[in-house]
Amino acid sequence: MSQSEFDIIHRYFSGPSWPLSQDVVLGAGDDCAILNVPGGKELMVSTDTLVEGVHFPMNWDAGLIASRALRVNLSDLAAMGADPLACTLALTLGSAEEIWLQQFSDAFRSLSVEFEIPLVGGNLAKGPLSITIQVMGTVAAGKGLRRSRAECGDEIYVTGLLGEGAGGLKVIQDQRSESEFADLLMAYCHPHPRLIAGQKLLGLASAAIDVSDGLMADLGHLVRASGVGAQLNFDEVPISENLIKLVGTEQAREMALTGGDDYELCFTAPAELRSQILSTDFGVMVTRIGKVTAAGAGVTLLDGNGQAIDLAATGYLHF
Amino acid sequence: MSQSEFDIIHRYFSGPSWPLSQDVVLGAGDDCAILNVPGGKELMVSTDTLVEGVHFPMNWDAGLIASRALRVNLSDLAAMGADPLACTLALTLGSAEEIWLQQFSDAFRSLSVEFEIPLVGGNLAKGPLSITIQVMGTVAAGKGLRRSRAECGDEIYVTGLLGEGAGGLKVIQDQRSESEFADLLMAYCHPHPRLIAGQKLLGLASAAIDVSDGLMADLGHLVRASGVGAQLNFDEVPISENLIKLVGTEQAREMALTGGDDYELCFTAPAELRSQILSTDFGVMVTRIGKVTAAGAGVTLLDGNGQAIDLAATGYLHF
Repeated sequence: MSQSEFDIIHRYFSGPSWPLSQDVVLGAGDDCAILNVPGGKELMVSTDTLVEGVHFPMNWDAGLIASRALRVNLSDLAAMGADPLACTLALTLGSAEEIWLQQFSDAFRSLSVEFEIPLVGGNLAKGPLSITIQVMGTVAAGKGLRRSRAECGDEIYVTGLLGEGAGGLKVIQDQRSESEFADLLMAYCHPHPRLIAGQKLLGLASAAIDVSDGLMADLGHLVRASGVGAQLNFDEVPISENLIKLVGTEQAREMALTGGDDYELCFTAPAELRSQILSTDFGVMVTRIGKVTAAGAGVTLLDGNGQAIDLAATGYLHF
Repeated sequence: MSQSEFDIIHRYFSGPSWPLSQDVVLGAGDDCAILNVPGGKELMVSTDTLVEGVHFPMNWDAGLIASRALRVNLSDLAAMGADPLACTLALTLGSAEEIWLQQFSDAFRSLSVEFEIPLVGGNLAKGPLSITIQVMGTVAAGKGLRRSRAECGDEIYVTGLLGEGAGGLKVIQDQRSESEFADLLMAYCHPHPRLIAGQKLLGLASAAIDVSDGLMADLGHLVRASGVGAQLNFDEVPISENLIKLVGTEQAREMALTGGDDYELCFTAPAELRSQILSTDFGVMVTRIGKVTAAGAGVTLLDGNGQAIDLAATGYLHF
């Protein structure tokens, strides 16, 4: 793609409609982009790859691919409380089809404007379709939300509704009514990176992670990194009426715990900040779902009576 | 690869033998890495993808792939005069074979130490083999070597020998003696990013680019970005005896002009800096090969008598 690479970048991925910012000293087109990291800030960096047929269905709409790829990456910035600075895009595709490139780049540009994350560089290679995005953001030095700083006695919260991503995937797989389950589909196709919530949690949350692998797994990562344990109240995990309508209450709860692809934030905070947290406008609902305990037990699930539930023994974990 | 991804990263891509630095505030393992960009510095960012069967031969040695991938990316930092800060690795592979991962990660770690570029994050996905690396570096604010600042009257230089990368590829393709042409093979498999030369050129060079697509093409990018033209002296382009031995003088010169994969630096500098440049130790030989002219003509090739050569008309451009 050596010759046409320049044409494609010029035609689809550059021009005055693409956003820049005062911290982009030099955008795409040189050997490197040049970025300014403002004084007193630290740089946050994360990268993710989506491969066709693995992370999204074959022959998926190009605009959906761009949207999901960038949103999933932005979610990692959100989980650290970072303010988006810039991103790069390494796009590998089999052939340079005009319609595909137009749809992909239109969607990418539109999100780049919406989330104020200029595209400052990239690479175009010939090969099986895959999209690798690296996002960069900034946060006040020393203030970034890490996974590793939850403390025994902290309370556990989650933004938004859980299980929606897994529900949306099921709507697609089972070819259910797209209009009836539009919210679930949206949650899967266009997950909303909780950037504002992450930034507002700076100074409030003791630890945070985004829910990409499922709440049980991701909260597990957080408590291991922090050297603590957690009790999760099964009944308090927020699920939607739509998800219950799709799969019933029991499976909805299971999807909320293990489904993944939600890209909500799970965070911990000292108990004395509860009223402040519950009265803050994070741009999304926030639900208290458990508490941080001493190390050793990992994540324990409790029923409404405070009794431990063995999730594996319930037989729910079948999908 | 959701479950084993963590195991693989833990086993092959982390641990005390992997380098960090004081500017890595937080390495891999959280939602983002956290980097410190020292005060007064700007951040340089570049990304490149290598796909199996496109950018390197099928079933190539894993250590060679890691080496070539990281070196090619570092060359972009070199071309801006940047000091390596950190990198991320997005690795897509079909299956997690132990020997492959061990060889790949050993080579990557060893280069990461050699070039002082800590690996601070990444992604592991299942799919056709491809490697996307993003490198980040720093340079004193406003001092980075851009392509766009060459001026009429400047002189044109190149580091090292040209055509070596293309020669090495030909040795592989034609299955020639590996010991006889070891230097060419090395140049193709383990290109040397000219980081020290790039950094020493800060304040001397007016513009720079790395030679990845071939000297004619890359110098073409540089003069277009700068709004100037260039005259290149055909006889002065540095080629090796080895390359001449492999393909003869005429084709050696052609490979030096159009072969690509050399990852040397081509740079311009004001004529009055010539003696300073030719007496500086850049860690590699530097050859003056032409001069910057007024805009309009692109890159003109001159023979020993100062007569223009039409490269296309010579019939050399056949590979």
